[in-house]
Amino acid sequence: MDSFFDSAGCAVIGASANPSKAGYQILANMVAAGYPGGLYPVNASGGEILGRPSRPSLDAIENEVNLVVLSAPAAATPDILAQMDRRMRKQGDIRAVVCAAAGFAEVKTPEGTAWQKSLTEFCRSRGIRLLGPNCVGVIDVNRKVDTTFIAGITHVPGGISFVSQSGAVGAWLLMNWAASPAGGVGFNKFVTVGNMADVDIIESVSYAGADPATRVLGVYVEGSAEARRLVEAAGEVARDKPVAILKVGRTDEGAQAASSHTGSLAGTDALYDGAFRQHGITRVRSVEELSDVLRAFDSLPLPAGNRVFILTQAGGPGILCVDELASAGIFQPARVSDATKSALKDCLPPIASICHPEGHADITAAAGAREHVESLEILLRDPGVDAVLFITVATLFLDLAAMARGMAEVVERLQGEGVSKPVLPAVLSGDWTRESRGILEKAGIPTFESPERAVRALAALRSYAEFRGRRPS
Amino acid sequence: MDSFFDSAGCAVIGASANPSKAGYQILANMVAAGYPGGLYPVNASGGEILGRPSRPSLDAIENEVNLVVLSAPAAATPDILAQMDRRMRKQGDIRAVVCAAAGFAEVKTPEGTAWQKSLTEFCRSRGIRLLGPNCVGVIDVNRKVDTTFIAGITHVPGGISFVSQSGAVGAWLLMNWAASPAGGVGFNKFVTVGNMADVDIIESVSYAGADPATRVLGVYVEGSAEARRLVEAAGEVARDKPVAILKVGRTDEGAQAASSHTGSLAGTDALYDGAFRQHGITRVRSVEELSDVLRAFDSLPLPAGNRVFILTQAGGPGILCVDELASAGIFQPARVSDATKSALKDCLPPIASICHPEGHADITAAAGAREHVESLEILLRDPGVDAVLFITVATLFLDLAAMARGMAEVVERLQGEGVSKPVLPAVLSGDWTRESRGILEKAGIPTFESPERAVRALAALRSYAEFRGRRPS
Repeated sequence: MDSFFDSAGCAVIGASANPSKAGYQILANMVAAGYPGGLYPVNASGGEILGRPSRPSLDAIENEVNLVVLSAPAAATPDILAQMDRRMRKQGDIRAVVCAAAGFAEVKTPEGTAWQKSLTEFCRSRGIRLLGPNCVGVIDVNRKVDTTFIAGITHVPGGISFVSQSGAVGAWLLMNWAASPAGGVGFNKFVTVGNMADVDIIESVSYAGADPATRVLGVYVEGSAEARRLVEAAGEVARDKPVAILKVGRTDEGAQAASSHTGSLAGTDALYDGAFRQHGITRVRSVEELSDVLRAFDSLPLPAGNRVFILTQAGGPGILCVDELASAGIFQPARVSDATKSALKDCLPPIASICHPEGHADITAAAGAREHVESLEILLRDPGVDAVLFITVATLFLDLAAMARGMAEVVERLQGEGVSKPVLPAVLSGDWTRESRGILEKAGIPTFESPERAVRALAALRSYAEFRGRRPS
Repeated sequence: MDSFFDSAGCAVIGASANPSKAGYQILANMVAAGYPGGLYPVNASGGEILGRPSRPSLDAIENEVNLVVLSAPAAATPDILAQMDRRMRKQGDIRAVVCAAAGFAEVKTPEGTAWQKSLTEFCRSRGIRLLGPNCVGVIDVNRKVDTTFIAGITHVPGGISFVSQSGAVGAWLLMNWAASPAGGVGFNKFVTVGNMADVDIIESVSYAGADPATRVLGVYVEGSAEARRLVEAAGEVARDKPVAILKVGRTDEGAQAASSHTGSLAGTDALYDGAFRQHGITRVRSVEELSDVLRAFDSLPLPAGNRVFILTQAGGPGILCVDELASAGIFQPARVSDATKSALKDCLPPIASICHPEGHADITAAAGAREHVESLEILLRDPGVDAVLFITVATLFLDLAAMARGMAEVVERLQGEGVSKPVLPAVLSGDWTRESRGILEKAGIPTFESPERAVRALAALRSYAEFRGRRPS
């Protein structure tokens, strides 16, 4: 699959000057990603698109073209195949085709099926890899490729790769990430597989798993005719790096809808559940949880144990956190030393409730930025603490930006001293907290919309740490 | 409790010119809410605050003062009681005190306990109602009162009232609402009870329940020494209007933390669960769900039956929705008539998947605003449909604002014709969809962050409709 990401030139067939067409947005995304190769719009009507002259066909491109993105109607397939055939005979330079157009086998018409078949056979016979049809495309932030037509996304480098059987779920995730407080969550590769005429979800999972730039792998899957191979491929990745899978079709009704959507067999859900657990794969239940877990895995160290401290400035949200932590069933409250308790007492307001119950401090709304930061450092230095859940509800007394800068500084300084423990902040709430959350996220500390979501992310980190600990190396 | 909301004048003791103090923000919130009475800052240092001259004490206010908000340190209580005593002897006009200051019985010091006792006894003996101490205050959007010190909230009129045992949870909810796509979720009354020295959570629940301006009641509760009376009071409200309760302390560990926070007995959680069900009270598990359910109850008609149609433009998010709907266990897919199927077929793109499975249409990314709006109308007109879940992932081909305007127009027009069914849209995602979500929300159609959250809100509507249907009238 390297050929999708490494190319000297890219032609977009069905390019358009109309910003509400995919054939425009694909070019715009390639430009926004900073594609370093030649970028060639191809359409019959000519004209300039984003400052680049359109060519009437592939034949008219003199420079090298290794990647072809198809955005023309499916009915144009015979003509496109003729162009590609001429080019392969003459220049022989096409290595990969991303077919973003729909109207192929997924519509179940004789024509659609035939077009997909001829496109697939053409590519196979020429050694060209094909993604799709009916896919949203691929992104590689590091190598500055974005063949998708998702508008309004950001290209921030990171270690997350995401492979999706649904373009819409992929778009949803990336659009949410673009709206993050830090102005974009970092990621690396993004692959939507569409009809899987050639490249399928299993190959994509294995490819991302073997990719050194991928630190964490996320997968959205509806089903596969080869469910066992899919799980084993993901499990192979999970031996070395965290994998989170959103597998839908949990219910019989959902499985039926999945089968109708991608024609895949959904498989018995309980079998997936067991197989995921056995392979150390994190199963998530929603796109929100997928996003939280991937961000946590990419930025945070795995907790060395299950002893968690809840540092909260607010009683109610702290109790929500305790409930969720207890429900997870894998944690215990961190019992800190007397020295730590005494240091907390010295640093915190007199009305703070420290270690009642154990593993919990309500530092109250009287706590300012300094108290938040100092108590966090005290807790992280206690060897009885494996992770800290940090909860703050914005008040006008609290300088949130100073707090965030202080927290980021503490976490970085302690990491320099070899004290590396996950800190999961829920800084609540509304638009007010965006600046401080942005400061934390830019410093590599992901923030969460609620204490419960932070707990679920921490549970994923801890379960994976336990899996890695059990696995004979 | 009327005296907290109806007053000719309000004094704020401990008023401050420093915007990072509660004694400033309380005045700012009263001004922002449009408080129509006299507003009198009281502090020792004098000067103007928000254009109002400060008075050294209550004695110096010549006009009527019915409401007193205390924001001075707890240690000032003896002096404040002396001022109030003089005023009650001379003018006798104080009817209600909101004590926003902390440092009373909740800190468990002899002084704190004594100050709370003397404040409470003073108020009781003079017929003055007391809220707090250690509370965030009250809001009545309609009557333009806001004694809270929560910054950055909006005062949009609506039918939701919220009673909270945690000021932080209340603030979290209101700050989230202020950041909503419509620029503020409407609400009516907001009460945080703090230490409950006089007004307690039970009275607040009953008061909001009896309040004609309250259409929906939300409650956050950690526990009560009189759990049975609390549930009965909420149940009494639920006979006539929807009640959603976020009861924390679900786990033993959470109950222990709750007991430490408000000193309340949490009670066995399973008992609450059963009692809530018996009384038709919706139990929610998170602040997000509380917000979703309250907004749905306030804006949407209750579904007359359990036959739901999923109208989705995106396959994957549609399957997530089917899974959640099936998991809820109370719905069945709407089976529409042949005429409806045929009308959908005429209106939708040829590649749309209509009623495979029943109760589900994937209208695909080829659907524009017109197709979204027309298919919604066709479905709402089918007598076999009780509710529509509407899912769209933003694409550049889709004019989201036109879609939202069209949907709002259809819903309003059909309501005029007597066709009143809930439509729950999940318009995904990121900042891109804010304008269209704002259009829908201003038209009284709440939007949701995910298909699953829309399903959970619909489940609350349907369960309450069933409860109301069962209840002998």
